Amino acid sequence: MELFEERGYEDTTVADIAARAGLTKRTFFRYFADKREVLFSGTEVLREKFVAGIAAAPADDCPLDAIAAGLEAMADLFDEFGEHPHKRQAIIAANPELQERELIKLSAYAAAAAGALRERGVAEPGASLAAEAGLAVFRIAFEQWTSGPERQDLHQLIRDALAELKAVTVPA
Amino acid sequence: MELFEERGYEDTTVADIAARAGLTKRTFFRYFADKREVLFSGTEVLREKFVAGIAAAPADDCPLDAIAAGLEAMADLFDEFGEHPHKRQAIIAANPELQERELIKLSAYAAAAAGALRERGVAEPGASLAAEAGLAVFRIAFEQWTSGPERQDLHQLIRDALAELKAVTVPA
Repeated sequence: MELFEERGYEDTTVADIAARAGLTKRTFFRYFADKREVLFSGTEVLREKFVAGIAAAPADDCPLDAIAAGLEAMADLFDEFGEHPHKRQAIIAANPELQERELIKLSAYAAAAAGALRERGVAEPGASLAAEAGLAVFRIAFEQWTSGPERQDLHQLIRDALAELKAVTVPA
Repeated sequence: MELFEERGYEDTTVADIAARAGLTKRTFFRYFADKREVLFSGTEVLREKFVAGIAAAPADDCPLDAIAAGLEAMADLFDEFGEHPHKRQAIIAANPELQERELIKLSAYAAAAAGALRERGVAEPGASLAAEAGLAVFRIAFEQWTSGPERQDLHQLIRDALAELKAVTVPA
């Protein structure tokens, strides 16, 4: 991550990363399939947290609010990551290939969230719609969090974006 | 397109496509950057139609309804395409690389739609949220249209998905 910041993602090799971390290239490849994986390895943990948060939402939450509960559970995890998400986001924003990968990752999150809603008894296509709308809320809030002034509250940004989404779906 | 259906996307070369169309490879490359472009060349026209539909929506439409007007304008265009969208979708569904490209295309549509809403005076982040939620409506309706029984009405599927999205955002 430090190297991506210093030299740029394109100009950093796996050999560079391994050397900085005090690993052989062979050991690096035991942990990561390629250098992109260094940026996307936390994905699985976040998704589990997200799905668990949806499952644990109050039974009478509407589907979108259940998704929002999952987003807040993810935000709890981000709170523990310090500056890492902000740095990671800056690297991704500078590289179209990484942006595509991020888009695909978020699409997988939406699929997982729709599955978690179906477990709660939400029928399709409502489950998928709520999940995709919820991910839109996350994308906006996360973008504000990583690009805006320091020490904003991601939880609050999620709640604001959710309220905003509800507002644009009803006649003024 | 016919060749992709017959042989599969992976096993069709540009030379095959050019031969079937009675073109030289050189002429093919004057029109398309690569074979993927054969599937994505209609994108620009659809996006223009989408943006124009949003701009032409009644002034008192809420942002999401303005997006829906744009989606219906796209549906008008799909009505003229016959079996093409269904065949195209089957090819894309069978190939992860094409699915990623489609995802990226839809993300560009969302950005264009958010811009069209800002032109209507909708502030951010509401414009982006309504645009992304609207694209979710489109994805669901389009998937039902291309995978469901023949001769469904895409307009009706869009309206149904829109109603469903509004339903999942409010408490039961």
